Amino acid sequence: MRLDLALVGFGHVGRRFVRLAAEIENRLQAEHDLTLRIVGIATGRHGVAFDDHGLDAAGAAAIVERGEALSRLDRSGAQLSSGVELIERFARPPRAGGAGRVVIETTPLDVQRARPAIDHIRAALGAGIDVVTANKGPVAIAWRELRDLAAARDASFLFEGAVMDGIPIFNLLRETLPGVRVTGFRGVVNSTTNHILTMLEDGGEFEPALAEMQQAGVAEADPGLDVDGWDAAAKAAALANVLMDAGITPADVERTGIRGVSGDRVRAAVARGHRIRLVASAARDRGPVAARVRPEELPAGDPLAILRGMANALVLRTDLLGEIAVTQLAGGLTQTAYALVTDLVTVARRRQSR
Amino acid sequence: MRLDLALVGFGHVGRRFVRLAAEIENRLQAEHDLTLRIVGIATGRHGVAFDDHGLDAAGAAAIVERGEALSRLDRSGAQLSSGVELIERFARPPRAGGAGRVVIETTPLDVQRARPAIDHIRAALGAGIDVVTANKGPVAIAWRELRDLAAARDASFLFEGAVMDGIPIFNLLRETLPGVRVTGFRGVVNSTTNHILTMLEDGGEFEPALAEMQQAGVAEADPGLDVDGWDAAAKAAALANVLMDAGITPADVERTGIRGVSGDRVRAAVARGHRIRLVASAARDRGPVAARVRPEELPAGDPLAILRGMANALVLRTDLLGEIAVTQLAGGLTQTAYALVTDLVTVARRRQSR
Repeated sequence: MRLDLALVGFGHVGRRFVRLAAEIENRLQAEHDLTLRIVGIATGRHGVAFDDHGLDAAGAAAIVERGEALSRLDRSGAQLSSGVELIERFARPPRAGGAGRVVIETTPLDVQRARPAIDHIRAALGAGIDVVTANKGPVAIAWRELRDLAAARDASFLFEGAVMDGIPIFNLLRETLPGVRVTGFRGVVNSTTNHILTMLEDGGEFEPALAEMQQAGVAEADPGLDVDGWDAAAKAAALANVLMDAGITPADVERTGIRGVSGDRVRAAVARGHRIRLVASAARDRGPVAARVRPEELPAGDPLAILRGMANALVLRTDLLGEIAVTQLAGGLTQTAYALVTDLVTVARRRQSR
Repeated sequence: MRLDLALVGFGHVGRRFVRLAAEIENRLQAEHDLTLRIVGIATGRHGVAFDDHGLDAAGAAAIVERGEALSRLDRSGAQLSSGVELIERFARPPRAGGAGRVVIETTPLDVQRARPAIDHIRAALGAGIDVVTANKGPVAIAWRELRDLAAARDASFLFEGAVMDGIPIFNLLRETLPGVRVTGFRGVVNSTTNHILTMLEDGGEFEPALAEMQQAGVAEADPGLDVDGWDAAAKAAALANVLMDAGITPADVERTGIRGVSGDRVRAAVARGHRIRLVASAARDRGPVAARVRPEELPAGDPLAILRGMANALVLRTDLLGEIAVTQLAGGLTQTAYALVTDLVTVARRRQSR
């Protein structure tokens, strides 16, 4: 089957996605009978393009990377100027049936309000269009609303890449662990802070380590999302909402970042045979789910303690199987882009089994 | 939907399965619309029972545990005396349609020929009946034949519990990592040897540690399957066959067990900051897949080095996502029994989407 895609957000993840989709086009066709066609792209600063017959996605990526505007690829006959407008155009009944339609949402994280991502997702699901996103904000802030909207419109709302890049977590539970209850979790889910902690273990100090990661383009110019624990808090809320029906937001997560963690403290822990990691966790103890993010000193043999650099992992506590850990030893853009592909395969499977 | 089950093999795993299925009956019904009914049980030493209207499985487990014969539960009207005979009776067209039929194979491992497990699986698949097994032998020895037979009869052949107990490995790849290629793996997959190595780290010696595990019922009276690496070799072959299409058998796996590993050697490794683990691995370097099992000295921060006691883990090397590790921090009978449940849910999903 063919899925027509509208990409809302076309940053590093969105552009890596279109290239990965081209790289594995033959596999998706051969193994999943799945063809992807990109018909719309909306960016924040490089305009919007829509073409019912398919856009040259690689060309679009190159245009954006040259700092030019996408609008010259546009064949919509309208002056589309936002993600919501693209989705409205995309939602019009297509000329010929057959292809499914999916909005792929990869706009940047707004940890307070998840805007405009939530608007995009509401617009798409409201029109009965499936949504795949790598954005953790909407799941962290409005999970129940979006889940119920998707169910009411018989649409899929999938977000495997929102928390752990390419590691399957939501799919793992949904597809491979039927009947299992998650009673808690703890994880290292933020690569920037883990990379900094690793550099401190190796003799560095916080400020130079952060500056080095900003220069390398790994950490943002405003690093607060990472080092103050907001990114990890959003992921903890997303995991707690989906896996434990917590009904919380990032602001409900008890949060301590790593600004106060000195190289000396990290190396003193190592000398004791321990490691300091920024741990995101949640547990339900009779009452509501309590989630938190904070630096923790862990024994060196803990599955989270062994993570260095960009590695991340989640330890799920379950009722039937005890603790299960899933570890991504190399994280990065390709992994996040791949998560979008897995969700598209899920969309295709669901449509084929209808 | 309802699945009628014939259990061939009714040892620790089979009996834990019927109890677990009863414990989570409500979840399976509510979340997967799945009802399980056990209509046949074949044992090696306690006879065979079949009842089209359903057997009292808990009662059957108690009968076997008292050392008595199952035949008094039998309503087949025949003198069934083997697993194959039970399967033939089970394969007769049922009076009323509706229920799916699944053979659950849990007879003991025969690492040389996988008998009688292969006979049971051939008989069931040949009759178009789905098969779920926790037996690694058939997958290690005859994967391609059984896969092709299942495909030809439009039947499912599933074996999630054969290698890593309750950790999803085969389901993980099939359901959550579409398009990903496994280029190699390494894992700690045998609990008995890992438990012994942990006891050596803590000051023990090989022979007393082994004797202790035999007394506790964890290791077999004949411990060769575990300590000589045969069990791990069978798992390595099964993984290599299914994940990498290796077409090998356990005899093709280069194999060194842990009999030659002394407490002194284990503790000297610890003193160097390392750990010795029995590692099962496979890789494809241009030519055919090479698989092996041997004690390896690993850095303490390796995902396999941190495994103590009954924990096990598999590190998958993939083309798109780099290395992914899946770790079961607590393994045991419940986990293996649960793997049978996950495969039954897969069978039900496939039937529902036909």
